[in-house]
This record gives sequence, structure tokens and C-alpha cells, in this order.
Amino acid sequence: MSKEIGIKAKKKEDFSEWYSEVIIKSELADYGSVKGFMVLRPYGFQIWEIIKETFDKWIKRLNHKNAYFPSLIPQSLLMKEREHFKGFNPEVFWVTHAGNDELSEKLAIRPTSETIIYDSYAKWVRSWRDLPLLINVWNSVLRAEIKSTKPFIRTSEFLWQEGHTVHESKKDADKEVRRIIKLYKRLIEDYLAIPTIIGKKSEKEKFVGALYTITLESLMPDGRALQMGTSHNLGQNFSKPFEIKFLGRDGKEHYAWTASWGFSWRLLGALVMVHGDDKGLIIPPKVAPIQVIIIPIFYKKEKEKIIQKVKDLKKKLKRAKVRVEFDLREGYTPGWKYNEWELKGVPLRIEIGPRDLANEQAVIVRRDNSEKRMVKEELLVRSVKEALDSIQKDLFKRAKGWLDENTFEVKSFGEFEEKIEKGALIKAPWCLNQECEIAIKEKSGADIRLIPLVRKRPNENCMVCEKPAKVFAYFARAY
Amino acid sequence: MSKEIGIKAKKKEDFSEWYSEVIIKSELADYGSVKGFMVLRPYGFQIWEIIKETFDKWIKRLNHKNAYFPSLIPQSLLMKEREHFKGFNPEVFWVTHAGNDELSEKLAIRPTSETIIYDSYAKWVRSWRDLPLLINVWNSVLRAEIKSTKPFIRTSEFLWQEGHTVHESKKDADKEVRRIIKLYKRLIEDYLAIPTIIGKKSEKEKFVGALYTITLESLMPDGRALQMGTSHNLGQNFSKPFEIKFLGRDGKEHYAWTASWGFSWRLLGALVMVHGDDKGLIIPPKVAPIQVIIIPIFYKKEKEKIIQKVKDLKKKLKRAKVRVEFDLREGYTPGWKYNEWELKGVPLRIEIGPRDLANEQAVIVRRDNSEKRMVKEELLVRSVKEALDSIQKDLFKRAKGWLDENTFEVKSFGEFEEKIEKGALIKAPWCLNQECEIAIKEKSGADIRLIPLVRKRPNENCMVCEKPAKVFAYFARAY
Repeated sequence: MSKEIGIKAKKKEDFSEWYSEVIIKSELADYGSVKGFMVLRPYGFQIWEIIKETFDKWIKRLNHKNAYFPSLIPQSLLMKEREHFKGFNPEVFWVTHAGNDELSEKLAIRPTSETIIYDSYAKWVRSWRDLPLLINVWNSVLRAEIKSTKPFIRTSEFLWQEGHTVHESKKDADKEVRRIIKLYKRLIEDYLAIPTIIGKKSEKEKFVGALYTITLESLMPDGRALQMGTSHNLGQNFSKPFEIKFLGRDGKEHYAWTASWGFSWRLLGALVMVHGDDKGLIIPPKVAPIQVIIIPIFYKKEKEKIIQKVKDLKKKLKRAKVRVEFDLREGYTPGWKYNEWELKGVPLRIEIGPRDLANEQAVIVRRDNSEKRMVKEELLVRSVKEALDSIQKDLFKRAKGWLDENTFEVKSFGEFEEKIEKGALIKAPWCLNQECEIAIKEKSGADIRLIPLVRKRPNENCMVCEKPAKVFAYFARAY
Repeated sequence: MSKEIGIKAKKKEDFSEWYSEVIIKSELADYGSVKGFMVLRPYGFQIWEIIKETFDKWIKRLNHKNAYFPSLIPQSLLMKEREHFKGFNPEVFWVTHAGNDELSEKLAIRPTSETIIYDSYAKWVRSWRDLPLLINVWNSVLRAEIKSTKPFIRTSEFLWQEGHTVHESKKDADKEVRRIIKLYKRLIEDYLAIPTIIGKKSEKEKFVGALYTITLESLMPDGRALQMGTSHNLGQNFSKPFEIKFLGRDGKEHYAWTASWGFSWRLLGALVMVHGDDKGLIIPPKVAPIQVIIIPIFYKKEKEKIIQKVKDLKKKLKRAKVRVEFDLREGYTPGWKYNEWELKGVPLRIEIGPRDLANEQAVIVRRDNSEKRMVKEELLVRSVKEALDSIQKDLFKRAKGWLDENTFEVKSFGEFEEKIEKGALIKAPWCLNQECEIAIKEKSGADIRLIPLVRKRPNENCMVCEKPAKVFAYFARAY
């Protein structure tokens, strides 16, 4: 492979440079014309489509329905829930003109859609019979990233889904928040092969305007945590200013309880970081646009026969629901093609040469561990399916092992600082006092990523104030 | 049904009011918080999803891939193709601030994405081996509608798909333009059951910046034409300013040829207009979110048994891939439910009462013509499928009959004015001179909707200048 195409940076040496290089050279994404904006190229978009279709099917089974709401929000509507909106203030893109005319009221491009959606919900919800109202939106939202931007992780516009649901009671909203975070976990662990930890955000870190936020966190290979998805119980904090009221089963009027939840294309960034290596991407089979690439090795004599065989195998695998392609391009050596498809992270490669043709066999090569196997043609479909399953499981296992190795429980701040410096997820006793949380952040750069849902009262004291701790919390430096 | 829920306006008496009422009351869509913006509610979004999935599958089979491009376009980029952009100038929403900070360069919210996409294509296209580049985007675009707005038809933001393709030659771009317009025709005629006419736009009416535009037009029941989709050969008009160049098979550098094509949620507006009646929507089965609604008619004695039967039938129909729901709500009469599901345009209703239970039969009622039939339970699945097929065909047939009855060929401007006043699609001889086109527009309010692809040189003279006509053109007043 020519130097310009291969990855130059090493994952262990310059993680950040390696990350950007993999994304650009594998053609997952590209930089946009405006700083901070990103183009999701077809190869990356195909992964997003698989994620989307998978999750979409799940929530539809739970009676959620998709809809579309305007991308522009009048300033007056945003002012209805000042507390919430304050958090987004510096990030909002403002539309002030249409053509040459100044607008009578400024319009914000949605940084998230709670306010504009609740304006509609207030009209639609009348009675408990209308509840739960379970709506999801697949769209893009815009948040101006002025300082540092990073493809997928921190971009001024990103694709995501935002679910917005209305319930009769706090308990119903609680249930929604939790069943969704469980679906996120299933999606991210079973499909993206990335291990995660579920917990509650601290008061300081929760979504502005939420009663509480449940989060799903993971640890990237550079030792920084990444928030993978969040699910918020918004209590009645929005239903009151927006007047989302319903006639209850008791014949009285009540303010509704609302919840919201989302994950974004950031998941693709996590996938790159967690699984990729110095050769490029490694895509878990369940979300790989191409699961198998067939590459012929030909010499003049057998060329036509080998091409025919490649086409036959593709047909066979396709019938077995494997996402398979072949690479018959002329003018490239097999070795060059291997490198390119490895860069693109295709989980399994099939090689067919004259000897394979004669022996009715093929060679299958795993992208994750370079394992090579000779397989008899009549067993190929089964072997391919088994290999894909193994790769999926092994990628998760490896990532889980790494997460476990880099998760530590500490008792003193000295120990904490030492571990955090190397990059880790750290479980430590905390007094629940925000001053200590802030002190830790200032001294170490780490925040509280989550507090486990099942709380055990620690016997230890808070690392900072040394008063008795009330919970264990997970800390990390984060993206 | 209570007065507030039923449609009050009559389609024949106040078409415009009837149209809005149907959309709002059937819960297809709702008005947004900002004038001109619309919310696509779950019921409407489901139709859009069916349209989208259908078309998406077709273009993917032809090797098109989806992607996502930024929604904000820097002003400087827009200025690269001034001619094209001039057309959108008054409609563009401008972002001038992020948070409290003024941006160094104004950003336009995309009114269409040619410019931002071509900026990327210029980087991606290097050789003829990269062509054709076939990318499609499902997104929303914004065009400020200041004057009159109308749900689905004229909104300041709308959902659509925009295909942007790059080719080696004009001929290849021609082929793309035509194969896409044929897919549009198939989608709109075979799925939405709306008859259309294909043709070329006049120079005056073509897409700004295009070499030529192929359009798909239909006639709405109020006699006004609606553009259903367009496909443009953009020639080298964009590739030159954006420098989309490739190394050709001849070893020389060439400017590429580009095409773009799109249809929007406007199709949903056409569906409402063409098929709906005074009771509400009528949705063609192929795009109906609910194809069959089962409604029980119960009396105390048989209630449990009937509910069980309703559930059984739903299961049976679902297994046969029919999109079926039942309505077991308490406190509503069967008659009330009939009205509600008729308002929502569900193409087929199944009624089950005690007598049906006893006789192992059900009653099926067609939404389009109110035809009622008793069907033996063992034949139900087959009967339902046949009825859905018939409804699909009959809706198209009826609409086609109406279009034919309201399409006229005229020779004189007197005749033209008389027909146009009643609302019609009119085929008339034209000299190809833009002055005559403008004169007709000024005198009658009608424009040229299209010029048939297969041109017959008329024997007649142009209606206006009375010089020998060069083509027949189709004229109408339009949305």
C-alpha cells in the first residue's frame, strides 16, 4: 500500500493523531467546510444506518413512534425554561435574517428539542388516555464547538436520536428512563462490542433541567472516559412551564412527567478508538457494512475460473445473509487490497487462489487477530458465520478485559492522583458534597462519571474532606 | 363522532380549508411554533417512512449510498456558484451568531446542498475509477416562506431526499437523470396511486444552474398542478467553479458532469388532496401505516369471545404481512370508531359482532367506496389481500380518469383561457419563445409545467405570437 493511504501514526504513541488519521483514511468521515463540522461519508453512514435500524426496531416494538419537529426554535419558547436553556446558551447558533430581512424574533437552531417538542405536546396531551406519549426523532442538532473539535466526539453538528416521552407518574417516567438505558447498553455491548457501565450523574453533571440523569460510560484506550448515551427523568420541570397537563384517572388535572434520552454518532468515534489498531479500523461484524471481503489471487491461466468462483461464493454468502463484497479491481496486487480492506476494518477476508480452486477450498483471515484458516468450500458458509460470531465476541472480551484492568478502587487521594495520571476509571468513596467534587476536578482534571445505581455505603471516608463517605463514585478524565 | 373531530369543510366547496382540516384532524401533521414551520406527527411520519424505505431500497440496488453533509454553508462557498444561488437568495435563513459572539462569516442553513456537497466531491473525485459517484441524503432543508404557507406544499422547512451524482460524461448524467425520474414515477404511481406526467421544464422554469430539468407533474383536484419531483442534469455548471475534475480513461484531466434530484414530503400533501374525501383521508394501501383496522361490536354476553377473536384475526393477518391494528377502546361506540378510522384513511375495516362470531365470518368495509362484504373466516386473509390490491388499483384508476378528463388540448388562446379558468392541465402549441411564455403567465396565471420528452412538431401556430409552434407544452396554474 502506498504511504499516503496507510496509517502513519501509532495508536500507542499518538492516539489523537492516529484516531483522526483512521477516520479520514478509512473514509468513515471527512472534515466539513466550516471548522467543527463533519461530513459522514457513505462508509460511516452505513454503520450509522445499521445502528439506527437496530435501535429503531427495538423502540418501535415498545410502541415508540418517530416524528419530525422544526429545527428552528423561537427565542421566546426557549425562555420558558431558562434553567435548562442556560446550559446551552454559549453553544446556540442564532438565525437572525431570512434573505435580506431581519427577523422580528431570533430563532435558535435546535441544540436539543425539548422546548419545541413540549410546545406541541401541550396541545396534544389532554387525558391519561393519551399517555404514555412515546415519540422519538432521528435528526441532527447543532452546538457550536468553539474550542477543540474532534470528529464524531466533539462536532458543531451531530446526528443523534432524541426520545421524548410523557408519562402519568414519576414512577412511569423512571421505568422509561431505565428501560431505555438498558437498550443502549444492549446496543453498545452486543453490537458495537464496547463494554459500558451504567450509573447516575452527580447533581453537577446531570442534564440541565433534569430531575436526574442515568448515563452509560465507557473508557477509551487513552484512559479517558466517554459518555455513550444518557436518559433523563425530567420530572415536572418542563411540563410546568410548558403546561403539559392531563386529566387523570382521578378526574383531576395533573402536570405530566417527562423523560428524554439520546445517543449520537459519537458511538462511531468510540468504535474507532476501542477496536482500531495500527493497520486501521476494526469493525465488529454486527455493525460492519461489509462483513466479508473476497479477494482473488490470480495468475493468467486460471483468471476466469477464479473470478467465477469469487462470484459464486459471494452469491452463496449473500443468500446466507452475510454482508459480502468482492474486490475484482485490476491493477492492484492482492497485498495492496488486503491492506486497504484491513484499513477499512472489514472483519473477515476470504482469499481464493489457483491452489484453492483446485482443492475446493478457501483461506479465511480474521481482521482482529490475523488468524488464517483453510476451509473446505462446502463448509465455507458455516465457517464464515462462526468466525464472525467469534470476532464479535472476542472484540468485546478484549475490550472488557482492558476496561477491567484499567478500573481501580482507591481510598486515598494520593493513590487517586497516581492512577488518574495514567488514565483510568477510578472507583472512590465520596461524601456527596459538591465542593469535594469540584476540588477533585480542579486538582486532577477528573470528574464524576457516575454513581452506581445500586449504592453501597462505603466504610471509607471521602478522599477530599475525609468525612464519612456516602457513596462510591466513578471518576475519570473525560472527553 | 363529535363535531370537533369530524371534517367540517367540504372538499368541493372549500378545498383549501378542507385540506388543512384533514391534515390536522387526522393527525398527519400540526403547525409549528414559528409561522410556516410544520410538525410531522407520528401518523404522517409513518407514511414518510414507508415512502423512504421503498425508494431507499431501490436506489441502493442501483449502488447509490446515503451520507450526511453539514446543514450550514459558509457564504463564500455559496458565492462560487452565484447564478444558482441567486435563485435561493430571498429564502435563505442566515446564521450570524454563536452564543453571544458574532461569526466572522455568515452561514446559510442549506436551502439545498449542491454547494456544500460539491466542496467535498472536489476532494474525493480523482480518477474515472471514482465515477460514477452516487450519493443520496435524507435530510431537511430550509427556505423561508414569507407569503403563503400550506402544510406539506409550502413550508419553511421540509423533509426530502437529495441525490447528488458525478459522472464521466454528459450521456452518463443524462441516463442518471432519466432512470431516477422513472423511479419517482413508479413510486408515485404504484405506491401513492397518483398519476403523473413526465417532461422537461422550460428554460424559464428549470432549476437555477441546471443544463435542463426533468419534472414529474400531477394535477390536484382544484385544477392546479403540483410538481412531484425533479431530476436535473447540471452539466459542468457546478464542476467548473467547484473544480470537480478527474483523470479520464484518456489520461487527460476533465471536468465532471453532475446531476441532482429530489422529492419531498410534498408527496404527502398530494396524497391528501388527490384521494381524500369529505370524511377525511384515504391512504393507498401500499403506503398506509395501518392497512386494516379491526373493530369489535360487542354486547355484554359475547364480549370476551369477540375480543379473543379480534386478537386472533390480528395475529393471522400480521403473519400474512398485513399492517393491522384493532380498536378495543372502551367508552366509544363502534360507529364513533368507524368515523375516526375513516378520518384517518385506513383503507380497510373489519367488523366483528356476535352474529359474525357465530357464523365464523367477518364484515369487511372498503374506505374508498364504502363497499361492504361478508367474508368467511377461512377466506379472510385472502379476501383482505385482494381487497387491498383492488383499493390500490381503483384509487389510481379513479385519479387517472380524473386527470384525463381534466387534460385538454387547445389551439387558441380563447379556448385556453376558458379551460384554465376552470382548472385544468392544458396541452397547447408553443413557439419556444420566452416572451410568449411570460405573456401567458401574465394573462392567465398559468405556467409551462412541462414539455413532453418525445416532441412532436405541431402543425399549429403558437397561441400568443401566432408564429409556427415548435413544441406542444403543458400549461397549468400551479402550487
